[in-house]
Amino acid sequence: MKAYKEMTKEELRALQVELKAQYEKLKEAGIKLDMSRGRPGARQLDLSTAMLDELNSSTAFKGADGMDIRNYGVIDGIKEAKELFAELMECPVDHVMVFGNSSLSIMYNLISSAMLHGIGGNTPWCKQDKVKFLCPVPGYDRHFAITESLGIEMINIPMDENGPDMDMVERYVNNDPAVKGIWNVPKYTNPAGTVYSDEVIRRFARLKPAAPDFRIFWDNAYAIHHLYPDNQTEILNIVTECEKAGNPDLYYEFCSTSKVTFPGSGVAALIASPANIAEFKKIVSIQTIGYDKMNQMRHVMFFKDAAGVKAHMEKHAEILRPKFEAVLNCLEAELGGLEIGSWIKPLGGYFIAFDTLEGCAKRVVQLCKDAGVVMTPAGSTYPYMNDPADTSIRIAPTLPSAEQLKKACEVFVLCVKLASAEKYLDN
Amino acid sequence: MKAYKEMTKEELRALQVELKAQYEKLKEAGIKLDMSRGRPGARQLDLSTAMLDELNSSTAFKGADGMDIRNYGVIDGIKEAKELFAELMECPVDHVMVFGNSSLSIMYNLISSAMLHGIGGNTPWCKQDKVKFLCPVPGYDRHFAITESLGIEMINIPMDENGPDMDMVERYVNNDPAVKGIWNVPKYTNPAGTVYSDEVIRRFARLKPAAPDFRIFWDNAYAIHHLYPDNQTEILNIVTECEKAGNPDLYYEFCSTSKVTFPGSGVAALIASPANIAEFKKIVSIQTIGYDKMNQMRHVMFFKDAAGVKAHMEKHAEILRPKFEAVLNCLEAELGGLEIGSWIKPLGGYFIAFDTLEGCAKRVVQLCKDAGVVMTPAGSTYPYMNDPADTSIRIAPTLPSAEQLKKACEVFVLCVKLASAEKYLDN
Repeated sequence: MKAYKEMTKEELRALQVELKAQYEKLKEAGIKLDMSRGRPGARQLDLSTAMLDELNSSTAFKGADGMDIRNYGVIDGIKEAKELFAELMECPVDHVMVFGNSSLSIMYNLISSAMLHGIGGNTPWCKQDKVKFLCPVPGYDRHFAITESLGIEMINIPMDENGPDMDMVERYVNNDPAVKGIWNVPKYTNPAGTVYSDEVIRRFARLKPAAPDFRIFWDNAYAIHHLYPDNQTEILNIVTECEKAGNPDLYYEFCSTSKVTFPGSGVAALIASPANIAEFKKIVSIQTIGYDKMNQMRHVMFFKDAAGVKAHMEKHAEILRPKFEAVLNCLEAELGGLEIGSWIKPLGGYFIAFDTLEGCAKRVVQLCKDAGVVMTPAGSTYPYMNDPADTSIRIAPTLPSAEQLKKACEVFVLCVKLASAEKYLDN
Repeated sequence: MKAYKEMTKEELRALQVELKAQYEKLKEAGIKLDMSRGRPGARQLDLSTAMLDELNSSTAFKGADGMDIRNYGVIDGIKEAKELFAELMECPVDHVMVFGNSSLSIMYNLISSAMLHGIGGNTPWCKQDKVKFLCPVPGYDRHFAITESLGIEMINIPMDENGPDMDMVERYVNNDPAVKGIWNVPKYTNPAGTVYSDEVIRRFARLKPAAPDFRIFWDNAYAIHHLYPDNQTEILNIVTECEKAGNPDLYYEFCSTSKVTFPGSGVAALIASPANIAEFKKIVSIQTIGYDKMNQMRHVMFFKDAAGVKAHMEKHAEILRPKFEAVLNCLEAELGGLEIGSWIKPLGGYFIAFDTLEGCAKRVVQLCKDAGVVMTPAGSTYPYMNDPADTSIRIAPTLPSAEQLKKACEVFVLCVKLASAEKYLDN
C-alpha cells in the first residue's frame, strides 16, 4: 500500500472518487451500529446472572457480628465486601470503603464535598479563588464532565506510552496551590490502553503539592480487566508507593464491579488512607443511612474471594479478545502502511484509541455517523470536548458482536481513508 | 392516680425513694434494649425476601423498548418503575425520577446541588450571603443534619395537630429571600405522627416565596405506612395543589420503599414538575451513569402495581400494630393521670412522640440509657440537637419484639416518673 502523503494530487483525486463510491454504497446499506460507549455485551452480562440466585429467600442474611444485612446500618460497607476489595486491590481492609453501584458517583461526591466542605480542614474549594485539575489526555470524558460541571479549570497533560508527562505534572502540582487534583486511569487508560510505568507512579507518590488539599484521583477502573491471561500487566500499588514516599493521604483510588458483574448493578469502592476514609465517612453519613448491603453480599457470595473474581475476568477476556482483534486486524489490514492513522494494541481495558491525521477526527466521526455507525463524539477524550489537534477517536469494541464489529470497522476505515484523502487534497 | 404536681414535697420524696429502689432493681437486671431508630423488625423484612427470587438467572432482563436492564443506561429510572411510583403517588409519569436505595441522598443531592449550581438559573446558594431553611419541630434529625452540615441556618417552626404554624411559615417564606426551603414529613410526621390538614397543604401550595429558588421539601416517607387499614388518613396531593395554585415548580416530593421492602436495598423516587426533573436530571447525569435498574425491576416484578404495594403494607401494619399498642397501653396504664407527660396515638408512621415536663427529656433519656434502654438522644428532633424546652422524646417501637418493648417501656415510664419527681422536688 502506498502512503497517502506520497500520492500525487491526481492519484488522490482518483482515490477519492473510488472511496466516495464505496461510501455511498455503504450508506445505502442502511447500517445501524454503535461503537460509542464502553458497554459490555450481552454474553458478558450472562456470565454474572447466576449471581442473582445466590441471594434468595432462603438466605440467612446474617453478616459479620450477626448483623441483618436487610436492615439499616453500616455506612462504609459490610465487612465481607471490604475484605474482598482489600484482597483484590491489595491493601489493608481499613483502607476500603464500599459504596453503591457507581465509582463515578464516589468521585463526584469527593469533589463536590471538597467544594462544599474542603479537604483536611482547608478552605472549601468553592470559597477559593480558583481551582484547577490536571487532565492527562486523551482521557475519560465523564471525568472531565465532573470537573467542568463544577467550574474547575482543566489543564491538558500530554501522555506517552509510560503515562502522563511527569515533568509537567510536577511543575504544576509542586508550584501552583490552585492545582487540587489530577485525573488518572493508571492501567489500560481510557482510551489509549496505556499502562503507567513504575517510574511515573513513583513520581506521583513523591509529589510535593503546593496545595495541602491536593489529591491524586486514581481511577483503577480496569485493574483486573486484562485481555490476555498470559500477558497481564501489573502496575505499582499507589497505596504502598504513597506510604513509602511519606504521602499516605495523597491519593483516592477507585474501583468497581461495573464491568465485572453488571454495569449499574455492581458494587464500587474507594481505597484511601484511614484518615481520608474517616473524613469522607463523616460527610457520607449525612448523605445516606447506607448503601445496598444485600447487593454487596450477593457479590461476595458469588465470588468468594479475589481468585474467584480473577477467574471470572478470564471469561470476560475470552469474549472480548476476538472483538478487539477483529478491530485491530481490520485496522492493520485496511490502514497498514497508509500513514493516515495510528493506534496501539491494548492489553486490557475497554477501548482502542485511534489517531487520525491532524484535523480529521471530527470529519471521520461525522462520516461514520452519516453511514450509520455511531462513534464516541470526536473531542470527547479531551477536556471541554476540545481536542486541539482534532486527531483523537475512541473505538469501543465491546458491545457489538464480532460480526457487527467487522461491518462497523469497514465503515470506519473507509471514513478514515476518505477524510484523509480530503485533507491531502485540501492542502 | 394523683397528678405529681398536686403532691406535697413529702409525698414526692417518699415516691422518689420508692422509684429509685425500683430503678436500681431494673438496672441490676442488665437489660439491653434499643428504641432509638425507626428500623423495621426482622419479621417485616421477611415479608419481602420472596422478592429476591423474582429476578433470577432465568429472567429475561428486558425492559421497555427491549433495553437490557443489566447494562449501562437510563438516568431517571426504568419505565416500569416510574409507572409504579406514579400510580402509587398519584402523579403523572413525567413527574417521576427513580433513583437508588436512599431518598435521603436525593434530598442531600438536591440541596448540595443548589449550593453548587443554584436552582432555576439563580445564584448558587454557596455564593449567596445567607441561606435559611424552616424546620417544623419536632422533626427528623437526618433532615436537620443535612442542612446543618451545609451551613444553612435553621429556624424552628412550631407544629400543632394540623401541621406547621402556617402564619409563621408564610411570614418567613413570603418576605425573606434568604429562606430557600422548608423540611416536611406531611403524613405521619417523624416523630409526632401528625397528618397535615387540607388547609395547611393548600397554604403551602399558595406560598408566594420572596426567593425564586425556594422549594418545599416534601418527604412523604410514610405515604402508605398506615397502622389501621380501617382508619387510613389521606392528605391532599402536593403535586396537584401546587399546580392548581399556579406554583407547579414549588415542591420536591420524596418517597422510597425503605420501609416497604428493605432499608438499604429498596428504591427511592423524586416526584417533581417536569421542569424540576429536567434541571436535576442534567446534574445527576454528571454524577453517575445510572442507578440500579435490576433492583428497580425486582421491585416492579414483586409488586406488579400500586395495589400490590398496598396489600403488602397491610402485612407490615399487622406486625406493627401490636408493638405500637404495647407502648401506648403501657404509657396509658403507667402515666395516665399523672400529668408528667403527653403523647399522641399515631395512625401511621414509625414513631410515638412523647413530651415530658419541661426540662426533663435529657434526664429521662439518660436514666433509660443507664438502665440499658437506648432511646433516640434527647434534642434529636430539633435543629442543632437543641430542644429549647427539653421535652421531646422520640419512641421507636418497630424494631424490638412486643415482649422486649413491654420491658423497655417499663423502664421508660419509670424513668419518666423518676425525672418528674426530681423536677418537682428541685422546684
